Amino acid sequence: MTLHTLQKPYQLLLGDVDNPRNAKTAFGLRDWVPQDCVAQLRFTDQAVSVGLPDMSPHRAVAAGARTLVVGIAPVGGLLPENWHPTLREALESGLDLAAGLHQRLSDIPGLAELARRLGRRIHDVRQPSRTFAVASGLPRPGRRLLTVGTDCAQGKKYAALAIAKALQLRGHAADFRATGQTGVLISGQGVVIDSVIADFIAGAAETLSPANTPDHWDVIEGQGSLFHPAYAGVTLGLLHGSQPDALVLCHDPTRKTLNGYPQVPVLSPQFALEPYLAAARLTNPRVRFVGVALNTSGLGEVEAARTLKETSESLKLPCVDPIRTGVDPIIAALESLYA
Amino acid sequence: MTLHTLQKPYQLLLGDVDNPRNAKTAFGLRDWVPQDCVAQLRFTDQAVSVGLPDMSPHRAVAAGARTLVVGIAPVGGLLPENWHPTLREALESGLDLAAGLHQRLSDIPGLAELARRLGRRIHDVRQPSRTFAVASGLPRPGRRLLTVGTDCAQGKKYAALAIAKALQLRGHAADFRATGQTGVLISGQGVVIDSVIADFIAGAAETLSPANTPDHWDVIEGQGSLFHPAYAGVTLGLLHGSQPDALVLCHDPTRKTLNGYPQVPVLSPQFALEPYLAAARLTNPRVRFVGVALNTSGLGEVEAARTLKETSESLKLPCVDPIRTGVDPIIAALESLYA
Repeated sequence: MTLHTLQKPYQLLLGDVDNPRNAKTAFGLRDWVPQDCVAQLRFTDQAVSVGLPDMSPHRAVAAGARTLVVGIAPVGGLLPENWHPTLREALESGLDLAAGLHQRLSDIPGLAELARRLGRRIHDVRQPSRTFAVASGLPRPGRRLLTVGTDCAQGKKYAALAIAKALQLRGHAADFRATGQTGVLISGQGVVIDSVIADFIAGAAETLSPANTPDHWDVIEGQGSLFHPAYAGVTLGLLHGSQPDALVLCHDPTRKTLNGYPQVPVLSPQFALEPYLAAARLTNPRVRFVGVALNTSGLGEVEAARTLKETSESLKLPCVDPIRTGVDPIIAALESLYA
Repeated sequence: MTLHTLQKPYQLLLGDVDNPRNAKTAFGLRDWVPQDCVAQLRFTDQAVSVGLPDMSPHRAVAAGARTLVVGIAPVGGLLPENWHPTLREALESGLDLAAGLHQRLSDIPGLAELARRLGRRIHDVRQPSRTFAVASGLPRPGRRLLTVGTDCAQGKKYAALAIAKALQLRGHAADFRATGQTGVLISGQGVVIDSVIADFIAGAAETLSPANTPDHWDVIEGQGSLFHPAYAGVTLGLLHGSQPDALVLCHDPTRKTLNGYPQVPVLSPQFALEPYLAAARLTNPRVRFVGVALNTSGLGEVEAARTLKETSESLKLPCVDPIRTGVDPIIAALESLYA
């Protein structure tokens, strides 16, 4: 057992949460892997709904569910105690449990013991499920694409998911490799890389994306930014361990300073490319950028189109908004460069 | 309570270790802080001696000792069970315990409970003693010097200790800030930065080196290398959180490939300077190199002198071997640049 591996399909636990903003994980799962979500579990009709059938854990198991996923972010980080009986009921009904909370489900009194007795598993995906090895730095077969960015929370996960899906639709062997809690729940596998002990960041990234057939693509979810005063270490370790052949730069053209760091300006894409390449060459000298993914959600239609065109021309790279335009130009670049 | 803070002076536990190479921590403490080491504890006369008086824990307490430090690295990482009674005896005699092992002393059955009951502390310095905050990236008063390197295990700790001590001898307000297990035991304070959860590397570095008076120097022990395929994330997070004004590059001119990574060449110093500066400018635009510390232990006297002279001329920086030549030229540069 190395990385997290969750049993699908899921029942999504929404409890009594009444603000959709606190149920982002549940909405993300419903949007990205609807085929893996068979039911929701709400305590009241006033709770947020993601549109799945309401079921008890017992009925969800009968409908095929294997894991109850906590789909909300509780205020203060702790699950209210009145949710605990539902978690026990789920285990007793035959479901595993999974959550990406700061609080560990397995620290809830009695829950880990109950799971052990019943042969169920509890996935606290923010907690690395094993100690990883120190990175070897040795090359391994298979192709790898990593999304990188000028800041956090710009669309690196979304871009990676979209590229992996598009590659699969075009008949390529490709896997999305998750490095954040929502990504791990979406894919059912992965590691929350910023929860790993610092010594093992690059080692965990090597484990996440193992040797594969030569034309297989791992599309790896990036984290943080090389230009972020708090998280650059995570980004660099993930970059070195991933040994990417291809990079996609993610950027939000309307963001002037880092999210939560008003004293730190966001770098323009043209100044971000070379530092990423210089750092990545340490473990893969053949690394190159294959595209730019702009998050143009803050721009109107005309301005978005103009920004995409100008960015593409100035950087001489395919430039897309994965939500607005799809990622076809990046797929075309990959097919042309790695024929 | 934030970082580790150990009570001095120490008794050094050597047990029945008979190979001096497995007692590096004890020798390091004896060499760097002889005034803080009052006794050793050996099970037999055949065990390694660091030349301190042999005492029982009870007698060591009478001689002033406050903490029993495990001064050895056990084969396989685990302390033999026949050492456990001695640890209990030490707690009962009035000593705290400290170790930098992979195994936690506080996981030894009954030991944590005994310490709690007696009001003693157990310092497993490889385990961060609290969750750190995410880095703010905000500047803070006081001056900071960080040692950085072209590889691991080249003398970054030694250089930082030597510079801190030389600054103090010249009458400057200065503290050595430890980031590795031996450094923490030497100084009695600090954080083992590679044991911190990845998200908090830079935050831990900010906590390690807090706001100070404007002319006070924190001399911070560097870790790893920006050019190391496994540890660069740690190095970058430490660099960003330390916000150094001054950098000292550490390098071993006889090492051609990274220690344990024969496929990765060691960068020449002239190619290492600019990447460090570029990365460091994110949190301190005024950063500069103030010197180079070469580890010339693999060179003869004449060749060492020639290498120091040539490196100094080509990089236009003071170049020393902290062991062979001392660090006076670097201190002179600091006094001239930051008058």
